Amino acid sequence: MTICALSTPSGIGGIAVVRISGPDAISACAKVFQPFKAAHTLDQRATHTLTFGRIIHPDTQEVLDEVVVALYRAPHSFTGEDVVEISCHGSAYIQQELLHVLTSFCGVRMAQGGEFTRRAFANGRMDLSQAEAVADLISAQNAAAHRLAFSQMKGSISRKLDTLHDQLLRLSSLLELELDFSEEDVEFADRSELLDIARQIDAEVVRLSDTFRTGQAIRNGIPVAIIGETNVGKSTLLNHLLGDERAIVSDVHGTTRDVIEDTILLDGQLIRFIDTAGIRDTSDQVETMGIERTYQRLERAQIVLWLIDGTRLADAASTQRCIQDTLDVYRRIQPYLRDQQLLLVINKIDLIPSDTLHANLPLLQHALDEAGIHSKNKDNAGHHSSPYAGGLEGVFLSAKHSLGFDHLREVLVRATRLPQAHGDVILTNQRHYEAMQEAHAALQHVIDGLESHLSGDLVAEDLHAVIDALNSVLGRSITSQDTLNNIFKHFCIGK
Amino acid sequence: MTICALSTPSGIGGIAVVRISGPDAISACAKVFQPFKAAHTLDQRATHTLTFGRIIHPDTQEVLDEVVVALYRAPHSFTGEDVVEISCHGSAYIQQELLHVLTSFCGVRMAQGGEFTRRAFANGRMDLSQAEAVADLISAQNAAAHRLAFSQMKGSISRKLDTLHDQLLRLSSLLELELDFSEEDVEFADRSELLDIARQIDAEVVRLSDTFRTGQAIRNGIPVAIIGETNVGKSTLLNHLLGDERAIVSDVHGTTRDVIEDTILLDGQLIRFIDTAGIRDTSDQVETMGIERTYQRLERAQIVLWLIDGTRLADAASTQRCIQDTLDVYRRIQPYLRDQQLLLVINKIDLIPSDTLHANLPLLQHALDEAGIHSKNKDNAGHHSSPYAGGLEGVFLSAKHSLGFDHLREVLVRATRLPQAHGDVILTNQRHYEAMQEAHAALQHVIDGLESHLSGDLVAEDLHAVIDALNSVLGRSITSQDTLNNIFKHFCIGK
Repeated sequence: MTICALSTPSGIGGIAVVRISGPDAISACAKVFQPFKAAHTLDQRATHTLTFGRIIHPDTQEVLDEVVVALYRAPHSFTGEDVVEISCHGSAYIQQELLHVLTSFCGVRMAQGGEFTRRAFANGRMDLSQAEAVADLISAQNAAAHRLAFSQMKGSISRKLDTLHDQLLRLSSLLELELDFSEEDVEFADRSELLDIARQIDAEVVRLSDTFRTGQAIRNGIPVAIIGETNVGKSTLLNHLLGDERAIVSDVHGTTRDVIEDTILLDGQLIRFIDTAGIRDTSDQVETMGIERTYQRLERAQIVLWLIDGTRLADAASTQRCIQDTLDVYRRIQPYLRDQQLLLVINKIDLIPSDTLHANLPLLQHALDEAGIHSKNKDNAGHHSSPYAGGLEGVFLSAKHSLGFDHLREVLVRATRLPQAHGDVILTNQRHYEAMQEAHAALQHVIDGLESHLSGDLVAEDLHAVIDALNSVLGRSITSQDTLNNIFKHFCIGK
Repeated sequence: MTICALSTPSGIGGIAVVRISGPDAISACAKVFQPFKAAHTLDQRATHTLTFGRIIHPDTQEVLDEVVVALYRAPHSFTGEDVVEISCHGSAYIQQELLHVLTSFCGVRMAQGGEFTRRAFANGRMDLSQAEAVADLISAQNAAAHRLAFSQMKGSISRKLDTLHDQLLRLSSLLELELDFSEEDVEFADRSELLDIARQIDAEVVRLSDTFRTGQAIRNGIPVAIIGETNVGKSTLLNHLLGDERAIVSDVHGTTRDVIEDTILLDGQLIRFIDTAGIRDTSDQVETMGIERTYQRLERAQIVLWLIDGTRLADAASTQRCIQDTLDVYRRIQPYLRDQQLLLVINKIDLIPSDTLHANLPLLQHALDEAGIHSKNKDNAGHHSSPYAGGLEGVFLSAKHSLGFDHLREVLVRATRLPQAHGDVILTNQRHYEAMQEAHAALQHVIDGLESHLSGDLVAEDLHAVIDALNSVLGRSITSQDTLNNIFKHFCIGK
């Protein structure tokens, strides 16, 4: 079946492109396309050519638009099928009518989300991980996310998994060798080589899995939660951070308001700010639900900006109350802290003499130290990911007077610096991550089996589960239609 | 200077197109474009071809994207210059970076709004009225507006004005003939032929001017004001009308929320609803300003839906009060009524027995008749434009229970039916309208001069003013840069 869709962003612009792909793409287009030069009928045109002409409405014979038709003959096209791309004027009306005419009169149907890319996969133009990277490439908003998606589209994951696949095949053939021996009832004593290989593969799988968190941070932004009691200046801080950077982010065509609402690019790194409800005791059920959500978001954050009202350090008594309240907040959030990095931000410093502040702040810091509050800034692998390990960084700020933001940004840039990736392959896709987790689990069974002298055929079963898991990433194993539907439904239509 | 811009709608999509135009378009693109096939360097490629390759960042040597480059060699392009169109993946990042690379490393600058079309005009690819129609074509949202813009882009106004121009030249040469005679001191007695021609031209100019109102209605929608006292159900009515049709309008890709907020397509005709503040006496200054604005919008409306709360006709006393209040509203709006068509809409009919309604409604209608309130539905030329002349159409409605909407729509369709255009040329552009008004004024001087035996050379001066006015529409007279700036600044960038 031949399909069509608008491939350019929806909206109004100078030009828009409608793509048609399938065995009848050329003849379908020819039904409504009249070339300016009579000799330039589409069936006569060579691949990779441009032809000027008119779209004629088959019913009214009215000219809908003057267009340029780009022709790609199979297999030299994105999908591997015959592809026609019609560049028309970018009005809402023309775009709509052109699709209407194609689907009503030319025997073409509207493409589903990602269907062009799905066909490219089905026709062997790319594997599944590459197809998925196409969607990532299109949604990439910063250099790092773009680079990752592009390298995946060009097969970086495929090559990595091919290497692992080769090692798995070697392991498999060694196991078969053992099975041959075992038929002769000979105990295959030395499984150390097999174990070595299995452990090497597993280490690589774990390493790859571990890149997922970095990949997520690159793709969606590093989650930074801003917490603190009510009225401590959270919104002012957030607005200030967003406001300064919003102009930059807005320069990116098409970043929607929803997206820029709470992300900024800081030193090329996307940071996603998570505003939270003020933390306090309340009997109000709705407010309790809001605070509950705060805790959940806190749990997923990588960095926590903990805002404290500096005016509360104005004298000894007030400082004591502030310490109590701060410890109280800590008591509440503690269950949700895992390895987030805490940054203490003392706000409203314009309202308090600096010597008073510097006299009373150590009291607060000491109390926090005593309570064991410090940045738990270790990454999954147990490495310290920042220079602030074991201490609680403090930043002085006057959000209202725009003081201290340079320092805050500097600290944020340092705190959000991502670990260097191993060999540039970084997982960004949940599905790939889950497949690697599966592979890891199955590899554990392989290793356990080898260690506990399980019979070779049982180990081989687990080994096949590993191979299947890796193949599923590339779509090499038989992939269910449901899985494919699920993958491609998130694509935009027209890709 | 070579220019570039994103030509597809801004936003994220499968593909995006960046257009480059100018003498260095091909060499500029070649600086960052690396074809997949080494032989396919752009300078070797023929016009109207597509070339696959990569965009390489000149600084980092990183691959930005894999793209297709469409090549159009001068003069066979939209602008008449060398044009290169780069189809890239439609991510915000790639679009932004590609423009950045082109402007920073390739000696290309960003195009201003409409600059491609302006170059097409400057290079004689189209006249000014055609160039202006390109912008109209892109913003057309319905079949009628599209058809108008397309025919103007193909030169319908140009051809019309050419005919007038020919007649004016004939008039001019006859005048010169008269001047030759007058040198010999012979009184050129019979100016009737000249007068005939001048009057014919003027009639045509007036006819063309008169199409402007229709053109405006087609392009921007027929303005329909909804008025009535507060709480009479205006918002429910509006939401109902919009809600029913919004799905259809939303189908049009890219109609923004701002636009669909208050327009619907009814029987192919765009209708623009104007919600108004409730009309009542108030001492509140802000509310007074709101009501003032209601009056201004009312003045510009073509149709006025006048909502009345049907429950107020429940008994004789209430009906009398309703009549007083309605006459009061009329007294207020009367200064702003010119030739708008009034439609009386009796709402909330579900809340009142139908026999009571039909007993009391005539009392209201009679009172309105007495007060001289009826639809002043005449168009500018004094023709009745609807079948409701001399009476006030009444529609019964229950906005809450969705009753009566079919009838209301039917009445609206009839009331908004546009007069047939003369020979399909309809003015839609304010600038063209003003030029025709100028031409008309100058023609009046010509006619007056001819009638009052003014000397030929003075009449000729006025005649030149007419020719200049018509030429200005096509951009044939010397058009000031300011005028051109003004025309093209409303274009989207990339066209």
